[in-house]
Amino acid sequence: MIRIGIYGYGNLGRGIESAIRQNPDTELVAVFTRRDPKTVTIRTEGVTVAHADTVTDYVGKIDVMILCGGSATDLPTQTPALAAHFNVIDSFDTHAKIPAHFEAVDRAAKQAGTTALISAGWDPGMFSLNRLYASAILPDGKDYTFWGKGVSQGHSDAIRRIDGVLDARQYTIPIDSALDAVRSGSAPALTTREKHTRECFVVAEEGADLARIENEIKTMPNYFADYDTTVHFITMEELRRDHSGIPHGGFVIRSGKTGLSGEHTHIIEYSLKLDSNPEFTASVILAYARAVCRMHEKGIVGCTTVFDVPPAYLSAKPYSELIATML
Amino acid sequence: MIRIGIYGYGNLGRGIESAIRQNPDTELVAVFTRRDPKTVTIRTEGVTVAHADTVTDYVGKIDVMILCGGSATDLPTQTPALAAHFNVIDSFDTHAKIPAHFEAVDRAAKQAGTTALISAGWDPGMFSLNRLYASAILPDGKDYTFWGKGVSQGHSDAIRRIDGVLDARQYTIPIDSALDAVRSGSAPALTTREKHTRECFVVAEEGADLARIENEIKTMPNYFADYDTTVHFITMEELRRDHSGIPHGGFVIRSGKTGLSGEHTHIIEYSLKLDSNPEFTASVILAYARAVCRMHEKGIVGCTTVFDVPPAYLSAKPYSELIATML
Repeated sequence: MIRIGIYGYGNLGRGIESAIRQNPDTELVAVFTRRDPKTVTIRTEGVTVAHADTVTDYVGKIDVMILCGGSATDLPTQTPALAAHFNVIDSFDTHAKIPAHFEAVDRAAKQAGTTALISAGWDPGMFSLNRLYASAILPDGKDYTFWGKGVSQGHSDAIRRIDGVLDARQYTIPIDSALDAVRSGSAPALTTREKHTRECFVVAEEGADLARIENEIKTMPNYFADYDTTVHFITMEELRRDHSGIPHGGFVIRSGKTGLSGEHTHIIEYSLKLDSNPEFTASVILAYARAVCRMHEKGIVGCTTVFDVPPAYLSAKPYSELIATML
Repeated sequence: MIRIGIYGYGNLGRGIESAIRQNPDTELVAVFTRRDPKTVTIRTEGVTVAHADTVTDYVGKIDVMILCGGSATDLPTQTPALAAHFNVIDSFDTHAKIPAHFEAVDRAAKQAGTTALISAGWDPGMFSLNRLYASAILPDGKDYTFWGKGVSQGHSDAIRRIDGVLDARQYTIPIDSALDAVRSGSAPALTTREKHTRECFVVAEEGADLARIENEIKTMPNYFADYDTTVHFITMEELRRDHSGIPHGGFVIRSGKTGLSGEHTHIIEYSLKLDSNPEFTASVILAYARAVCRMHEKGIVGCTTVFDVPPAYLSAKPYSELIATML
């Protein structure tokens, strides 16, 4: 039995909680929160909700601590701090800062003799794996990542910070003609604008200047300025009725050449279509939590990523069954 | 530099030879053949063609021997025999016999202290990996493998054995409506006939009884009887002009549920579209040959499969670059 702790109880933490029910070799020991534990109701009977400050009381009672905080401010400090006491796994997703985060977690985990895995999920995570596999197989090629159709939390938040906006939901949408061009094997050069569009559903305050809000969204640097962006103003009721889900997904496609003179073209495509981004991310993390336990049992300490994990470690099934039924 | 030996010089051996040119950290040392080496011309200048009987002269000069024989009669004896002297990799693809082949190779490799990897390629191989990853992530789900559109060598051979047939090419074609049903997340139960059709292009001897040939194909047990099969009689010129390629590919799709009551559906899809089945298979094998070397350096001996290999071992790039650019 793999004893799991959940550190942080938002959408991702709740996703881990429900994924544990689908994996009979895992068991939830405790949920840790920085809120008053009395105010946090979880959905698993008989499981403790404890204050984050008491986490070290659980050393020896938890095999893997799953960190469910945010990449901006929580994980850079929490993952190294908890790696000093537990095997840990997180979904750190600020791609540019992964090397620095890796170093910090690696140092803490090696000192403590624990096993850590960072950046689990689907991107980083399954998409990263597919970029790696495809580029190792077809070195003479080019790969492309497309995201969506799905809700981008960061972009939705950016719209909500605009004066006069009550709530908003932003969808990232891959452009079909760009996907088709990539799948043709022509290895096109695509600008940011040619790969994705952004569609925004915005609830404005009564009497707000809609033209100004729309302009502020469309010209926002980094977030929207480089994309063709559509803005729809809707009511709060419409937002709740039509846009309450958190779907996402995307595509990793590599085209490459083989043959003595590159005469043959191959297309490798991996895609995800997800009804719930946090629940799918949680499902990936739980499989990798199993792998963290196995790596720890094998004496592997320090920080790892999905690139280090033998695939068989992810499955609850015995190796003999895997090679007999899946190979 | 990874020193490679190619054992068997057919389509797959030639694919390995051209893949080596795309991977500057690999080098071809020798090609081994059971034919008279003087009759075999390879496409790499300055490389020895040696008789298979002399292979043990190359112990210490080759880091990984790549076996390019057939699964029916060659690999069951060759892979264990060569594992007694070299690190080896093969593409053994008789799914039902993989556990027995694994045992035989494992015994030989452990006794000799070598590292072996069996069943590399795309199915078994990349498709197996995707079945494993997807089922570990979404335990409450169902997966489907579709093959094609592509040439099935075994089915083409079966047609050629029919009396009155001069040559033939058989294409396996996935049925679009079945793919769409799977992608809808409805987890349909599909019979063999509902998943694929088979299309045959046949060159008959002059005066042969075409109706009899067509009937023999369509009613052939195991190969065609369970499928909707179409037979076209064409000339030898048409066969050479329109059907000389060896394309293949396919799809591994898993749909699964998450959430406390399975309220969210997710689709994971991996697909390949290959201009040349043997060259793509060779490209996968060469990446795994690199991994075999790394596992051997780490002291891992015995038989392994793609399920055992940390993905980072497949890439020629340093780990720090992988996490900075692909994660």
